[in-house]
Amino acid sequence: MLEPQKTHNPTGRLEAFSDGVFSIVITLLVFNIQVPRNLAEGQTLWQALLDSWPTELAFLIGFMLVGIMWVNHHNIFKLIGQTDHLLMVFNALLLLTIALVPFTTAVLAEYIRTSEALTATLVYNGLGVVVAVAFNIVWRYAAHQRRLIKAEVDQRIVDQISSNYRFGPLMYLAACALTLLSPALGIAVNIGLAIFFALPLNTELFGGD
Amino acid sequence: MLEPQKTHNPTGRLEAFSDGVFSIVITLLVFNIQVPRNLAEGQTLWQALLDSWPTELAFLIGFMLVGIMWVNHHNIFKLIGQTDHLLMVFNALLLLTIALVPFTTAVLAEYIRTSEALTATLVYNGLGVVVAVAFNIVWRYAAHQRRLIKAEVDQRIVDQISSNYRFGPLMYLAACALTLLSPALGIAVNIGLAIFFALPLNTELFGGD
Amino acid sequence: MLEPQKTHNPTGRLEAFSDGVFSIVITLLVFNIQVPRNLAEGQTLWQALLDSWPTELAFLIGFMLVGIMWVNHHNIFKLIGQTDHLLMVFNALLLLTIALVPFTTAVLAEYIRTSEALTATLVYNGLGVVVAVAFNIVWRYAAHQRRLIKAEVDQRIVDQISSNYRFGPLMYLAACALTLLSPALGIAVNIGLAIFFALPLNTELFGGD
Amino acid sequence: MLEPQKTHNPTGRLEAFSDGVFSIVITLLVFNIQVPRNLAEGQTLWQALLDSWPTELAFLIGFMLVGIMWVNHHNIFKLIGQTDHLLMVFNALLLLTIALVPFTTAVLAEYIRTSEALTATLVYNGLGVVVAVAFNIVWRYAAHQRRLIKAEVDQRIVDQISSNYRFGPLMYLAACALTLLSPALGIAVNIGLAIFFALPLNTELFGGD
Repeated sequence: MLEPQKTHNPTGRLEAFSDGVFSIVITLLVFNIQVPRNLAEGQTLWQALLDSWPTELAFLIGFMLVGIMWVNHHNIFKLIGQTDHLLMVFNALLLLTIALVPFTTAVLAEYIRTSEALTATLVYNGLGVVVAVAFNIVWRYAAHQRRLIKAEVDQRIVDQISSNYRFGPLMYLAACALTLLSPALGIAVNIGLAIFFALPLNTELFGGD
Repeated sequence: MLEPQKTHNPTGRLEAFSDGVFSIVITLLVFNIQVPRNLAEGQTLWQALLDSWPTELAFLIGFMLVGIMWVNHHNIFKLIGQTDHLLMVFNALLLLTIALVPFTTAVLAEYIRTSEALTATLVYNGLGVVVAVAFNIVWRYAAHQRRLIKAEVDQRIVDQISSNYRFGPLMYLAACALTLLSPALGIAVNIGLAIFFALPLNTELFGGD
Repeated sequence: MLEPQKTHNPTGRLEAFSDGVFSIVITLLVFNIQVPRNLAEGQTLWQALLDSWPTELAFLIGFMLVGIMWVNHHNIFKLIGQTDHLLMVFNALLLLTIALVPFTTAVLAEYIRTSEALTATLVYNGLGVVVAVAFNIVWRYAAHQRRLIKAEVDQRIVDQISSNYRFGPLMYLAACALTLLSPALGIAVNIGLAIFFALPLNTELFGGD
Repeated sequence: MLEPQKTHNPTGRLEAFSDGVFSIVITLLVFNIQVPRNLAEGQTLWQALLDSWPTELAFLIGFMLVGIMWVNHHNIFKLIGQTDHLLMVFNALLLLTIALVPFTTAVLAEYIRTSEALTATLVYNGLGVVVAVAFNIVWRYAAHQRRLIKAEVDQRIVDQISSNYRFGPLMYLAACALTLLSPALGIAVNIGLAIFFALPLNTELFGGD
């Protein structure tokens, strides 16, 4: 009944907090790459570095994925002009899913060359589904009846993003399904999605910049 | 006697510094979740991941708790228009208590299934009391005789937040008392408080957005 | 000979970068506090937590010290209105010295109860000297002939800060000298300095808010 | 075909995100410096600290290098007034290369006094080439036909930076070539480049402040 609950505020601090989490998550991925220690008899440092390619590749893909997520976050918050309590809570949930990326990336890197590769890849692609759903919740909460959308934003843009965002969870669900056929295929699809989202062509489709 | 001591400044840099600490603390919580290594004979990766549920649950709750603390910090600094030396010191003390959350969360996750569960849960809920007291110190210092409150903020809002903030330490003290009856109950109350604070209904009560 | 070298820019991004480093350094100090694992036969969790008091005390002092450094950084950059290449380099050197605080704090916590307590305390207080010198370099570079000082700032304030900053290195040198008499005394002086700087009385002396 | 893809936005959030990554990377370098534990029989703490000079030197150089990279990033983004999707992707790639600095620094510190010093130094200087190339990509993408350059920036400045940036990859390639003659020489050149870039004389050459 008092005023401050009704006022909708600029999104500056929410973006600063989110940028902090994104920066840390993307940099934590570096921690998955370990300096080789205790080289085996006759093994060179080059060989040791090359032998850890799954970790290094996982780090590269993870970094680009989180980078793409940041671009997406940036893009939707350009259209969102206000925050409210629930948006902050939903955004925290989204950040929670993104903060799990270094964990699932480390699981993938640890187990991709073992008999547990299927489980590890499912965990990795499964988080993709969860992140995509969390993005949908944040966006749909803000966009529903233009609840928190800036007045000057064209409704057609809002509608297009809403309809395009629907595909994110489906794509990662498909990646999970293909993982069941073959973990290697599941990872390939994941990499393909990262490259696809990084291409400028998709800025239209995914509300890019 | 010179001027700069008297001037009260906008809160931008204090918020940026605080956001940095919040972002790091919330992301450090991920470090509690470890990639299972050296699976036991006959144990699958799924089983190993499921077996570490206390860590994962502790991480989820800790993340939401720190997220809620950030929302609270955001909410009171919307009403605070100036900083002074003591506010910066009290805010640093508040950040110190929040920076301890990953530590007490790790203690809880490590000992919840041992005979030391009572101690671990008391440490965890005890920090809740300390954080709530620190929030009260920051708020009461700023709100006392409207020392640092923006001119345009209605006094009734200030008074309501002051009177509501009084309940925070009491609620966590109650969680500590219930912990003595049963650690499981203490944790349940802690989770309940986190959910309660995350609900939009409480924005009125706790000066939400 | 081209323009952008001459233009002096607002300090926004330098402050944001510095705030990032301060936030991370202050939070890294938490890492010095370890969850007790493998309790000794008959030892309770309480005892294990109490036994690690040197680490916990070192963390508390380190946190407040870095907090005070941030307040100082904040205070002098309120008076600095422009940056140039050398200010950015000197500021990076200052941040470098501050980034070493978690390291010297960990050295102190590790060796304070051993026969190497003298060395550990000298390293800890020695860094205090280095940080104070680095603060002097940043401030004196900016303040020399008002090179980067905002036009509206009273010269008496600049002069007072310059003359007061002179005492910082001397105080920590004194702490080092007293450490030679007794490590415990050296630490007590260090804590005393932290409390002294945190008091509002000193805002005048040290260009506080 | 919809509007938001065409709009070019201010660079604020891209800079905030980049500052976050820079802050974390520069602070992570501290992690390479370890507190000496389990002193050898008859070894003092002083000796143990002095014995780890390669790590400490590597940390100091790495810190200054990342600091210089931040100054460069700051300098070019003062001239860039807008972002688009590809700039964000190229900037993420640049941040990826910078996030690898703690890793290659740790490799160098670990192996500099072993028979694998050549490989370690090549990895370290090789990353210098990659970072310099990534800086060129970001800058050339933004500067090509003044795509994202602020209207008020003099074209001669843009041209001078473009022509000077060309030297970065060549200098680090030269450092790699000299490494083949002698790892010590390769490291000396790397340190020399860091000092050279930190000098104010070079602000003209490298688009400094």
